[in-house]
Amino acid sequence: MSQSLSGADTLARIADTLETRRPENGGDPQSSYVAKLLAKGPDAFLKKIGEEATELVMAAKDGVPDRIISETADLWFHCLVTLTHYNLRPEDVLAELARREGLSGLEEKARRPAS
Amino acid sequence: MSQSLSGADTLARIADTLETRRPENGGDPQSSYVAKLLAKGPDAFLKKIGEEATELVMAAKDGVPDRIISETADLWFHCLVTLTHYNLRPEDVLAELARREGLSGLEEKARRPAS
Amino acid sequence: MSQSLSGADTLARIADTLETRRPENGGDPQSSYVAKLLAKGPDAFLKKIGEEATELVMAAKDGVPDRIISETADLWFHCLVTLTHYNLRPEDVLAELARREGLSGLEEKARRPAS
Amino acid sequence: MSQSLSGADTLARIADTLETRRPENGGDPQSSYVAKLLAKGPDAFLKKIGEEATELVMAAKDGVPDRIISETADLWFHCLVTLTHYNLRPEDVLAELARREGLSGLEEKARRPAS
Repeated sequence: MSQSLSGADTLARIADTLETRRPENGGDPQSSYVAKLLAKGPDAFLKKIGEEATELVMAAKDGVPDRIISETADLWFHCLVTLTHYNLRPEDVLAELARREGLSGLEEKARRPAS
Repeated sequence: MSQSLSGADTLARIADTLETRRPENGGDPQSSYVAKLLAKGPDAFLKKIGEEATELVMAAKDGVPDRIISETADLWFHCLVTLTHYNLRPEDVLAELARREGLSGLEEKARRPAS
Repeated sequence: MSQSLSGADTLARIADTLETRRPENGGDPQSSYVAKLLAKGPDAFLKKIGEEATELVMAAKDGVPDRIISETADLWFHCLVTLTHYNLRPEDVLAELARREGLSGLEEKARRPAS
Repeated sequence: MSQSLSGADTLARIADTLETRRPENGGDPQSSYVAKLLAKGPDAFLKKIGEEATELVMAAKDGVPDRIISETADLWFHCLVTLTHYNLRPEDVLAELARREGLSGLEEKARRPAS
């Protein structure tokens, strides 16, 4: 469970750090990769979404666990950068996933024959 | 903070559910979308990674917050399906992100002039 | 060479046909896949670009020639649909490729030591 | 029609040039971008397919004709590099597109009510 807790912390903590990289928060494109992406604007980091998604697909086709983890991390990281630019938070995405999970649970219950 | 906690629960809980959808765990392709993807094999869900990544890019270009959240949720969900197939966990990806965060913190400290 | 000639004909001929599938040219979304894509608007066919690109990548990773050809054809076809929507032609893309080829040829000559 | 002819020439001519960039044909990774891609192997140019597809999608969302043409040219170019690696030709893709066109014509005829 402590791993699970640190996991939630990780996404929120990275989002907090990314927030400080925004141009209006003094992010410096010279010293920070993320500040450079955010300063360039959407096409710069959205292009990375397409690139990292493709690299994840290739790592999965090769079936190499370490690369699958690493490419998924790359992809999620650039999703976090995207969320930052649009003033959104990973918590919003997790809440949406939890909402669907609930819906799916409800559907499942609805499908059960009445006892 | 409770939101953050439930966030970690969400990824782990979804991964637990996806685990039950694997063919060898009795996942039923007739009644479950995920069981169908996992039964078909990698190309079925990896194709969705490419598709959802593109949909996220389009939602971001349109700048519609709800769609950005929804498409990111779709993309992460299919990443979770991919991790399940390869016996990996979202905790592995979060640990990799935390590891990089630590490295980046260390690098930052290393770059600071000695006082 | 006749194959090469028919190739050029193919791209132009397909573009001509796609033109007739545009809503304003009476394309019928009920009977034509392309008319449906064009009636739905950009997101419908751009999503296919991302999907078919991913399928080409997977076919290439598998190294199956027939699937590589088939997925490349799918990808180029949806590029032609995209060009149609934006009032562009495959000839424009081929001209751009020829232009770059020329530039690259010029660069190559420029790099040669004077005799 | 001369434009159409030069179009077919363009794809075949570029494929001929790419052929000379293969490692076994003496392509030099130091002086040629394509020779470098081909020497590195599939992941290097397949990653570009994902990247250029995403850039085409973004150019299309922006609706800028010159960028749509330029990104489609980039995408097709990297498809040609991919075909080269797998000993395939653009003519194979054009033949597949022509074959489908024929099938679709036949289908269309088949659907017509008998007079």
